[in-house]
Amino acid sequence: MQNDNEEFSAGREARLSGHSIIKRDMSSTPRLRSLSIDNINPHVKAAKYAVRGEIASKSEEYRAQLKKPAAGEPQTPPEHSLPFDSVISANIGNPQQLGQKPITFFREVLSLLENPNLLQNEDALRTAFGYKQDVIDRAKWLLHEVQSVGAYSQSAGVPAIRQSVAKFIEKRDGFSADPSSIYLAAGASSAVNTLLHIICSKPETGVLIPIPQYPLYTASLAILNARAVPYYLEEHKAWGTDIDAIRESCTKARLEGTDVRAIAVINPGNPTGASLTAEEVTEIIKFAADEKLVIIADEVYQTNVFIGTFHSFKKCLSELKEAEPGKYDTVELASLNSISKGVVGECGHRGGYFELVGFDKEVQDQILKFISIVLCPPVIGQCLVEMMTNPPVGGDPSYPLYHEEYEAIEEGLHQRALALYKAFKQMEGVEIGEPQGSMYLFPTINLPPKAIEAAKSAGKQADDYYSMRLLDATGICVVPGSGFGQKEGTLHFRTTFLAPGTDWVDRFVVFHKNFMDEFR
Amino acid sequence: MQNDNEEFSAGREARLSGHSIIKRDMSSTPRLRSLSIDNINPHVKAAKYAVRGEIASKSEEYRAQLKKPAAGEPQTPPEHSLPFDSVISANIGNPQQLGQKPITFFREVLSLLENPNLLQNEDALRTAFGYKQDVIDRAKWLLHEVQSVGAYSQSAGVPAIRQSVAKFIEKRDGFSADPSSIYLAAGASSAVNTLLHIICSKPETGVLIPIPQYPLYTASLAILNARAVPYYLEEHKAWGTDIDAIRESCTKARLEGTDVRAIAVINPGNPTGASLTAEEVTEIIKFAADEKLVIIADEVYQTNVFIGTFHSFKKCLSELKEAEPGKYDTVELASLNSISKGVVGECGHRGGYFELVGFDKEVQDQILKFISIVLCPPVIGQCLVEMMTNPPVGGDPSYPLYHEEYEAIEEGLHQRALALYKAFKQMEGVEIGEPQGSMYLFPTINLPPKAIEAAKSAGKQADDYYSMRLLDATGICVVPGSGFGQKEGTLHFRTTFLAPGTDWVDRFVVFHKNFMDEFR
Repeated sequence: MQNDNEEFSAGREARLSGHSIIKRDMSSTPRLRSLSIDNINPHVKAAKYAVRGEIASKSEEYRAQLKKPAAGEPQTPPEHSLPFDSVISANIGNPQQLGQKPITFFREVLSLLENPNLLQNEDALRTAFGYKQDVIDRAKWLLHEVQSVGAYSQSAGVPAIRQSVAKFIEKRDGFSADPSSIYLAAGASSAVNTLLHIICSKPETGVLIPIPQYPLYTASLAILNARAVPYYLEEHKAWGTDIDAIRESCTKARLEGTDVRAIAVINPGNPTGASLTAEEVTEIIKFAADEKLVIIADEVYQTNVFIGTFHSFKKCLSELKEAEPGKYDTVELASLNSISKGVVGECGHRGGYFELVGFDKEVQDQILKFISIVLCPPVIGQCLVEMMTNPPVGGDPSYPLYHEEYEAIEEGLHQRALALYKAFKQMEGVEIGEPQGSMYLFPTINLPPKAIEAAKSAGKQADDYYSMRLLDATGICVVPGSGFGQKEGTLHFRTTFLAPGTDWVDRFVVFHKNFMDEFR
Repeated sequence: MQNDNEEFSAGREARLSGHSIIKRDMSSTPRLRSLSIDNINPHVKAAKYAVRGEIASKSEEYRAQLKKPAAGEPQTPPEHSLPFDSVISANIGNPQQLGQKPITFFREVLSLLENPNLLQNEDALRTAFGYKQDVIDRAKWLLHEVQSVGAYSQSAGVPAIRQSVAKFIEKRDGFSADPSSIYLAAGASSAVNTLLHIICSKPETGVLIPIPQYPLYTASLAILNARAVPYYLEEHKAWGTDIDAIRESCTKARLEGTDVRAIAVINPGNPTGASLTAEEVTEIIKFAADEKLVIIADEVYQTNVFIGTFHSFKKCLSELKEAEPGKYDTVELASLNSISKGVVGECGHRGGYFELVGFDKEVQDQILKFISIVLCPPVIGQCLVEMMTNPPVGGDPSYPLYHEEYEAIEEGLHQRALALYKAFKQMEGVEIGEPQGSMYLFPTINLPPKAIEAAKSAGKQADDYYSMRLLDATGICVVPGSGFGQKEGTLHFRTTFLAPGTDWVDRFVVFHKNFMDEFR
């Protein structure tokens, strides 16, 4: 548990180091600058975010070395001594960096939003560029609603877009959704930041966090000087939840003085890809109702599901409310969605939303004030949220191509996941379940004792060491399991299955064999 | 000072109320929910942000009542009982909401970035839409650098865009700029949030803030549970700085136990519009060097200057370094710029940057980690930063139109500022200096005692009351001076001069006369 404890107790460590900093400031040693590593915000220092950590930085350096010049730039032959010709950024779910094509309908509409002058020649749009009437109509309607994509919107987002999101949720779940409880956000990361800012009222505040988790949660809690309360997912049960383990974590934390106020659930899972069953979701809701916990349902992978079905927390909560009227009315649910993941994959546009259910009105007012301080989410990202939640449907001129593209991306992801899974399955010491969804695989690696020794000598954890060696040998960048949390004595890594082709998978297989041979 | 004290001591109040919250949580009263106004983060509660406060919310309600249906929506005749037909959002610098046209070159390039398929028919772009070759070339180059605007970039921004920003700064100042010290951001608000997160290490941390100020600063400090240390700008000296007053504020705060670590300077001023002289800037730098303070130079209005000249902190610091080599090497300067203001006015795209000078390397690493947690600024916004800092130049095919549009916007802003100024100058009890720059006027209003009484009866501050009455009577939304801070016994409001036409100015004049008559 040592590594994990280090991660989870970041808040407490930070407070301790905060005390020593006050002492240091009071000393009479003259300072060169205002800011040094010893006197900046200790909570920022305590935050860890391995998805863009040391290995990712190094991969960017390699990428810069391999970068091809732009057209018109001097075409010097690439000079490098790297043992690979391309960097594969499998550390981060960044589909379009790895060649995933954007959905044509979305981008055609965005081009008109950015340059409404194009609408002055609709004929040319149709004849020279194949723009369909629904593209033109959607752009006109969005322009009417936003005035200009260069103007600030209301802080919670453009009212008409909040309505489209509400309709999407109603259609998805079969239960009503209130546009005034939907808040557009600059991606789900921004939504999590907002929610945790409201919840974390003091250093004793705790939030239940799945392990493994997407490290945004522990990093944000560290910065807010609050406590991550870990609950372990069950690797042997395809990374499902165990409500008894959750309850036990919560009870234990409360006995230790932690004021547990919320539970974060990532469904489908990151880094695991697992979709929870309706029973698992319902159990968590009942538990949260009993314990008066806000549920933060991170549902950004809701359309990336290969095994099982996505069951939204909103739907399961609504069913509970229908079954036992009155009993669940004050359950506080914040459910998150994003344009970054799914098949849309538009993460560079920074768009997303969260829906609040059961929140106190005065608390919602404070949330609105908080998000107002940074004015509004990017308006183009908001327009993408609108189109993601209100895409072309059968009969619309753009539907056939939209449908074809959507299916192809979905199918491509699944096929690449399966190919990678098959390769991993045959690698010595690697344990992996069938790909379930999201954009990731999170295999266990069993490394020889000599490799673990070598890692220690290099001052690294074994999964860190393995991942850094992988990058140096192949250009493939993955994230060590310690970046997400893992049970004591286990080692993992997370890789996306976004990169096309099989060349990089072959590189991975060869590296792994050599690595195992080296340390056998 | 009462109002101001309330604002500045927000951090301290928050800590006090934090204690009472802990007590409440420990009580045995059963809670309905996890979150109530009494137990959420007290520091978020303490934050005030009047730019989007109660008056702005009400203006949005009026706007919704007056909204015209989109094409195709039922054309019901507008039914409302409001005494005006349009809402004028003069509370916020939102140029394109008020009809400012975007720069054609920027938006043509963005349309190609959003839909690169358009580049497959360059002839049609040229013939049907008048796209020039430099538009096409710029789009191709940016696409090469970003891969896709839908992909995450590096956390600090696209390397090539950081280089364009560095070149812009070099050209502006005549001194070198290091691309690796330039960080792209989702607007300057996001940059301020990052910097204050790093600086605010404990409740005693203080940051010198001008009064009046843009309330992002006090709001962010309240959320971070740190202290705003006010220094007053000199209204009688056209809102310039008084270095003695700044020094006195700093000394007094330190004697009271505040660890003053940074000084924020907004230049040109918001809400005042004033440009500091080179001497004023240099004095502040010397003061910061002596006192070991980080300088946060908020320079987002650098191109909106009617009186005086913009002197960047970077340039003045570089000149000091040149004059006395070695002496100023450890002065820490963070200078901010944005696509939201200036003539560009693309605030809905959320783009900006900050340049760090003199920062410790380890501290910069922590800044990079912090911004990595939310992944990257919107990539389209980054591309706009690129074009703002690297616009068409003489000889480029797009230059003539770019130049014409740029000048027209600049000139239009100045003309509207002068028209509003003339109207205000003739209003009874209003004191106002000539418009100096930015997008705002910040006149003093002297209200009759009866009006101040009426405000008290309504439970409002007098400037709040006046502004709310203005909105209710005319649909014009301004921000009361108390939202920015003002000297005791003075009243102001901030209005943008972005709205076109003179009708709204006439409405304002009539309202003011009636208001004064009512309370004389």
